[in-house]
Amino acid sequence: MMTFEGSHILSVSQFDREAIAKILSVSAQMMPYAMRHKRCHVLDGAILSNLFFEPSTRTRVSFGTAFNLLGGFVRETVGEENSSLSKGESLFDTARVISGYSDVIAMRHPQMHSVSEFAEGSSVPVINGGDGANEHPTQALLDLFTIESEMKPHGKTLDGLNIALMGDLKHGRTVHSLSKLLSLYNNVHVTMIAPNALQMPDNVISTLENAGHKVTLTDKVEGNLACDVIYQTRIQQERFASQDEADLYRGHFSLNKKVYQQFCHQHTVIMHPLPRDSRPEANELDVDLNDLDNLAIFRQAQNGVLVRMALFALTLGVENKLTQYEKPVTWFTTKSA
Amino acid sequence: MMTFEGSHILSVSQFDREAIAKILSVSAQMMPYAMRHKRCHVLDGAILSNLFFEPSTRTRVSFGTAFNLLGGFVRETVGEENSSLSKGESLFDTARVISGYSDVIAMRHPQMHSVSEFAEGSSVPVINGGDGANEHPTQALLDLFTIESEMKPHGKTLDGLNIALMGDLKHGRTVHSLSKLLSLYNNVHVTMIAPNALQMPDNVISTLENAGHKVTLTDKVEGNLACDVIYQTRIQQERFASQDEADLYRGHFSLNKKVYQQFCHQHTVIMHPLPRDSRPEANELDVDLNDLDNLAIFRQAQNGVLVRMALFALTLGVENKLTQYEKPVTWFTTKSA
Amino acid sequence: MMTFEGSHILSVSQFDREAIAKILSVSAQMMPYAMRHKRCHVLDGAILSNLFFEPSTRTRVSFGTAFNLLGGFVRETVGEENSSLSKGESLFDTARVISGYSDVIAMRHPQMHSVSEFAEGSSVPVINGGDGANEHPTQALLDLFTIESEMKPHGKTLDGLNIALMGDLKHGRTVHSLSKLLSLYNNVHVTMIAPNALQMPDNVISTLENAGHKVTLTDKVEGNLACDVIYQTRIQQERFASQDEADLYRGHFSLNKKVYQQFCHQHTVIMHPLPRDSRPEANELDVDLNDLDNLAIFRQAQNGVLVRMALFALTLGVENKLTQYEKPVTWFTTKSA
Repeated sequence: MMTFEGSHILSVSQFDREAIAKILSVSAQMMPYAMRHKRCHVLDGAILSNLFFEPSTRTRVSFGTAFNLLGGFVRETVGEENSSLSKGESLFDTARVISGYSDVIAMRHPQMHSVSEFAEGSSVPVINGGDGANEHPTQALLDLFTIESEMKPHGKTLDGLNIALMGDLKHGRTVHSLSKLLSLYNNVHVTMIAPNALQMPDNVISTLENAGHKVTLTDKVEGNLACDVIYQTRIQQERFASQDEADLYRGHFSLNKKVYQQFCHQHTVIMHPLPRDSRPEANELDVDLNDLDNLAIFRQAQNGVLVRMALFALTLGVENKLTQYEKPVTWFTTKSA
Repeated sequence: MMTFEGSHILSVSQFDREAIAKILSVSAQMMPYAMRHKRCHVLDGAILSNLFFEPSTRTRVSFGTAFNLLGGFVRETVGEENSSLSKGESLFDTARVISGYSDVIAMRHPQMHSVSEFAEGSSVPVINGGDGANEHPTQALLDLFTIESEMKPHGKTLDGLNIALMGDLKHGRTVHSLSKLLSLYNNVHVTMIAPNALQMPDNVISTLENAGHKVTLTDKVEGNLACDVIYQTRIQQERFASQDEADLYRGHFSLNKKVYQQFCHQHTVIMHPLPRDSRPEANELDVDLNDLDNLAIFRQAQNGVLVRMALFALTLGVENKLTQYEKPVTWFTTKSA
Repeated sequence: MMTFEGSHILSVSQFDREAIAKILSVSAQMMPYAMRHKRCHVLDGAILSNLFFEPSTRTRVSFGTAFNLLGGFVRETVGEENSSLSKGESLFDTARVISGYSDVIAMRHPQMHSVSEFAEGSSVPVINGGDGANEHPTQALLDLFTIESEMKPHGKTLDGLNIALMGDLKHGRTVHSLSKLLSLYNNVHVTMIAPNALQMPDNVISTLENAGHKVTLTDKVEGNLACDVIYQTRIQQERFASQDEADLYRGHFSLNKKVYQQFCHQHTVIMHPLPRDSRPEANELDVDLNDLDNLAIFRQAQNGVLVRMALFALTLGVENKLTQYEKPVTWFTTKSA
């Protein structure tokens, strides 16, 4: 198996099934801390540099929270503030300097492959928090963790999963990465529900088919939702090939309670990478689904903290020391209820 | 009495006199930590999400400091960075996600009632740090705490207080909220000193009068300053009904040492919500007052930390555990002198 | 010797040789913590307010890291967010308020002398992180610490140093401050290599000459590089007196491996305040020098953390308590290798 200690986490492609299993298993061990049953100070005194050269509140706060929950300090940069880069400093130099300050780095950057370039200069592990259209591996891992944990109560696993990916599959970074990870498992059936102009790229389909999985392509929602998991994404009007096509499909890819009750089966879980667009013209997931227990979107977001805690623990080599550094929680919390 | 544990702090209207007394009493207990006589780590491992969708350095740093002084970590957002909201995410969704990461949330937002809307989605206590023209309850509470603690050496209390509110009483959020809180006490005399066009709104006056208090309305400064407390606020030139009225009043609502010595009595305390505008055209509180012991404005700002510490302790249910988690201070400090 | 406890750190001019020796010696004591051999929590519970009214990622993160490595919390402001200053608040008022929250303050501000003005209102030590063209004392101190530690393996000291300052010596704040510090030592030879229009200001040269040092002024690179240390800085095209002069000098002040091997001696150390401009039109230090062991630029940046830790420890009076508050490091680290 790959050695996590001291490694960069740059792409889902770097993991085999065994490595993924390790990440998901350590993520599950993080639940008591994230739910405030206990607190953990195994990284007390360690420093995360949380470098968000592209703003993303949710992902940034999730990384910082994960590090704090293990007891560590967080130093941050947000947005275009990095005057050194604008003064012509290379990512290599920035990495050499910042990694000299830090124990681990999480980084988001708008340019593709910039995080890998940065990692070459870093003396400490770098975790990719999203580099443009390229990769967002922690999102893919939290999606996989969510599917696994949502299936478990029903006696199901990732092997044999029946999942529908839905929406703009052409541009959606998250559904590409998730598909690559699913190709590591056995007998998966993936239904790709998208307007023709926004269907999944061929290379992603090939990856799944070459791994022996069944792939169904369709632009019909009805009749294709009776699966284990629906992974919904956003469709933006401007992404269609033409206004005519946009008009043709308008509103056909929304999910709401009526659609759910008519076409899904009893245990179909709904996921979404968030944010969901609640404006009427988008509305990919209607708020009338909020009281549905199978709407997993907020558990999914919280699982991001677990997965990021796991990656910090693994790259810093403390995954077997967590219980040694546990303490009781002193304050009132609604989480563990 | 209201239960603080797990509750949101959204408005001064949610408190009765007993609840206020509790907040002020717990605030006073925080003094040894704020003055670095001791340090307290009762919230070691807890996470505050300090969400400032509208920038406010002073209030943001005050909330963060308060949480650190109880031993907790702080995750922050500042300004318009929140790309999820701009992508059409509802405040409810943002709250569901961020509260999943946090133990408590402090939030400022430019829109009225946005913090309450956010609180509906939050699974952890939300403390309003200001929502537009609506409410800023921690400011009102620190003002009340300041009045109480400034009066105590002179054997006076909030009951029987003689206070002048001064400046732009029409638009000043702080003087509205403070008036509402004062209405919970007995026999208060409030003198409202303002240009006619900027007098206190009728509903605030009614609240005080209905509670049996004496309210005096005036546009004259002289003769109205011999009270226990003067609460000065800013007047902006553009707020007057006309340029003629602005010219009429220009400079009449400034306080300086000469005015103080001529019209105030020996113990009159001066307060101001800060920032005070030190530019000559404004100058609501002249810097020649800086060496006046009764100028309470900087003590008032520091009391904000005490009140915010108290609200964190109360909503997280640790107000009775503080002394169990005390340690000596290790470093040199001028504060406790 | 000056008392550090409770003092502001505003200018290199406030230090005599004994004070500098103390800072450098305490900086060296910080190495085990910066290298993660041990961690130190002597400032556990203390709060740094890291006020960057002018953005500077590297310096800001370095100050924050230094405070975290001693166990303390960091509250921050970045950029123009400070609405109170823009509302007419004086630096004095801001300082009175923020210092009431903090144990120590680090501050960068674009205006000359603004940090000193701020310090007058502060009740806690203020460390200047750069105030416009005026001073950046922690940079000068980390430069001096770097020279001393790079010379030690070769049996050399700051006394008797042979150093070349190179590039835009007219506008470079760092080379001015470093020259002032060098004037405290004995028998230093400083070669100033710059285009005529960008030579070192007369007052800096006088300071060195009055201290008995040898100063050589030249616009020739060749033949002047066989020294102990080359301190390279950036030349910006627009800084020349005319385009003709710019064309005359273009590319003459770059260092690369070929120049190094031809003109430097075996132990010549290269320093640079960073960021270095890696764009072809600038390229003051070619990346082909990156594998040169004598390229000290990244060690120099890391020394900034040591010096800032030392200044925090000294101003807060904990420099003799460090080992009492040591703990083993729990996580995997590449630093101490």
